[in-house]
Amino acid sequence: MTGIRTQALQARDAALAVAALSTDAKNALLQAMAAALEADAAVILEANARDLEAARAKGGGSAMLDRRRLDGKRLQGVADALREVAALPDPVGQVTRAYDRPNGIHVERVRVPLGLIAMIYEARPNVTADAAALCLKAGNAVVLRGGSEAIHSNTAIAAALRRALREADLPEAAITLVEDLRRETILELIQLNDIVDLVIPRGGEGLIRFVAEHARVPVIKHYKGVCHQYVDAPCDLGLALDLLIDGKCSRPAACNALETLLGHADVAATFLPRAVRALRERGVELRGCARSRAIVPDLREATGDDYAAEYLDLVLAVRVGDGLEQAIEHIQRYTSDHTEVIVTADASHAERFVQALRSAVVMVNASSRFSDGGELGLGAEIGISTTRLHSYGPMGLEALTVERFVVRGEGQVRHPDLLAPAE
Amino acid sequence: MTGIRTQALQARDAALAVAALSTDAKNALLQAMAAALEADAAVILEANARDLEAARAKGGGSAMLDRRRLDGKRLQGVADALREVAALPDPVGQVTRAYDRPNGIHVERVRVPLGLIAMIYEARPNVTADAAALCLKAGNAVVLRGGSEAIHSNTAIAAALRRALREADLPEAAITLVEDLRRETILELIQLNDIVDLVIPRGGEGLIRFVAEHARVPVIKHYKGVCHQYVDAPCDLGLALDLLIDGKCSRPAACNALETLLGHADVAATFLPRAVRALRERGVELRGCARSRAIVPDLREATGDDYAAEYLDLVLAVRVGDGLEQAIEHIQRYTSDHTEVIVTADASHAERFVQALRSAVVMVNASSRFSDGGELGLGAEIGISTTRLHSYGPMGLEALTVERFVVRGEGQVRHPDLLAPAE
Repeated sequence: MTGIRTQALQARDAALAVAALSTDAKNALLQAMAAALEADAAVILEANARDLEAARAKGGGSAMLDRRRLDGKRLQGVADALREVAALPDPVGQVTRAYDRPNGIHVERVRVPLGLIAMIYEARPNVTADAAALCLKAGNAVVLRGGSEAIHSNTAIAAALRRALREADLPEAAITLVEDLRRETILELIQLNDIVDLVIPRGGEGLIRFVAEHARVPVIKHYKGVCHQYVDAPCDLGLALDLLIDGKCSRPAACNALETLLGHADVAATFLPRAVRALRERGVELRGCARSRAIVPDLREATGDDYAAEYLDLVLAVRVGDGLEQAIEHIQRYTSDHTEVIVTADASHAERFVQALRSAVVMVNASSRFSDGGELGLGAEIGISTTRLHSYGPMGLEALTVERFVVRGEGQVRHPDLLAPAE
Repeated sequence: MTGIRTQALQARDAALAVAALSTDAKNALLQAMAAALEADAAVILEANARDLEAARAKGGGSAMLDRRRLDGKRLQGVADALREVAALPDPVGQVTRAYDRPNGIHVERVRVPLGLIAMIYEARPNVTADAAALCLKAGNAVVLRGGSEAIHSNTAIAAALRRALREADLPEAAITLVEDLRRETILELIQLNDIVDLVIPRGGEGLIRFVAEHARVPVIKHYKGVCHQYVDAPCDLGLALDLLIDGKCSRPAACNALETLLGHADVAATFLPRAVRALRERGVELRGCARSRAIVPDLREATGDDYAAEYLDLVLAVRVGDGLEQAIEHIQRYTSDHTEVIVTADASHAERFVQALRSAVVMVNASSRFSDGGELGLGAEIGISTTRLHSYGPMGLEALTVERFVVRGEGQVRHPDLLAPAE
């Protein structure tokens, strides 16, 4: 088996070829990749069946098995997603600013690819195709290290994608799947800071902490989403309830699901009983502070741990306070810098909430579940960053590029006095 | 002495206060900081004299002593630079994009401060004031760790700046100078990834490698500037000579000075003798490849090490090749991703050069010495990045911020089918 350093070097060389591709060439490649997935459907589904077999033998639960399962329809969805990436605007070469300096030099800021991106992820095999497509569209090569539980599916998908590269006379190393699943191989990969430009880990907090602790390559990550919704006074309580139900119940395992409800005391007596009833009807368990339990006595008591928790489940922590400033203090203490929501009818309260909080996404009178690359108009999402560097919040194609400087002049110099007299 | 973790925590809390300041408040603070430096001139110059005394006792050379020396005029320059930062546009709160989604939510991308920035630097004491001013203007707090050789100057400057914070009722910890100069204290600081948002090391390659190897906090850095100028055919050789002299001689110790001249064989026989003569007149030593030595026989022979070297001195490596593609190959092999220049009269050659190279700054018919935040119109420069993440090339105030999402809606949800019927 080729060592990971050699694989990464080949991928880095391939990155130069990908960076040089025109938009049309990249889009044709993505279409060919989609067709290759369709052509290989039988092989990929058979590989996926082997992964599921292994997982069942290990005693995996049915929800987990379902997440990993591919069928004809889901695989078609993966292929269609590649065609959607082909349809997105190409960020590479975009001129974000252009201006002349007083000395006449013309300066442009132009987006260029990052280079070589390593994706380290768990479980769902569609990430293999999605991440490869987004990295390539933004002019990058990618090293993919998926989880052992999807290794057969990932290998079959990568083989199809690489065939499309080969048939386009491009180096297959532009999509490199790491088949050596030892932990020390990840460790070596994330320390190749002379070869790899960025690592994006996606998965459980354990995986992400492992990568963040040991990487020498820059890491963009988010650990968790402890998203808050603050129900202010005055506010439309019907609207607040809609946002609460959508935020908590529409996909509780998503990182943009609500974990904590904060309420203004002036509306809590009216709102909380309604909210508890509506959420319990939908199977949500609530855990409240003393003030909320004074309003709804049968709430289970919440502890500090509840306010720090990302439940990823039908559980919601509740806290009633004196109003906006207490809500801001609570969020500043417990925030995961992911997404915070205020429901209010007072525009000045909304502005104060937006200004005081520094989370990646702040919503006024909208559901936390819009904190998603697709919903926010990025076209797709390679990940979410809760660290304030390079990218903050949902990351689309632009986040896989960086702006550089291109300068055009007519012989301008800084120190004309140094020059030779004209000959 | 307070531990570095405690100091960093205080600085992080102070960052929240700085982030909340209006543009006017920040500008008034910068003006007050400039006035404080002027008021403390005698104290600062006396402290600087003690640093120079210690350096002389250690046997420091005169060039090094001069770099560290402050006098009334230089200190005035430092104060004036703070006022220039006050006059720059405030990046915080800038809305870089705003659009509506089909469901009616309004999305804005808004610049926010990074949070807490650690600067680790050597030698020149003006960095203490410059870095503090830029970090504050962009809404951040800063931890400054200057070199032991400027510790008295840095302490006196920081004391003046902190007095201005105190008199504005702001936490002094927003500008925290680390006076504990042990290496293990830097080590602890750059591993505080739960507290510090970014580390910017500035200084020699040894310092930067130490920080990059041991940091768990994200690092933005550049190791060195091996800047190339390629003289193409056809081209205006007088213009090429002007750019060469300016690039090599106007400040050889700068990272944007030229280190290698690449020449097209079709012009080398004419250009190289002129270039060698003009550069030797200015004290430059040249080292050439076999083809350049066939044209100018008394050139010292260049080795691969010469092409990889950042001389920071009046030395230039020379290589003659078959033209554009060979020049691109040479640069791809030896680039430090800093700045590359092409001098050409052929627009298609210029475009090929720009597209093929991925360095932070690419110049067409302009001096490498314009690769500088001030010259490129950023207003000031906190550092230069040669890593393609967050910022690439000279970094101004914007590079000390990141874009986040602010969303305003009217109760939009993702899954209306989940909601309770209206009551």
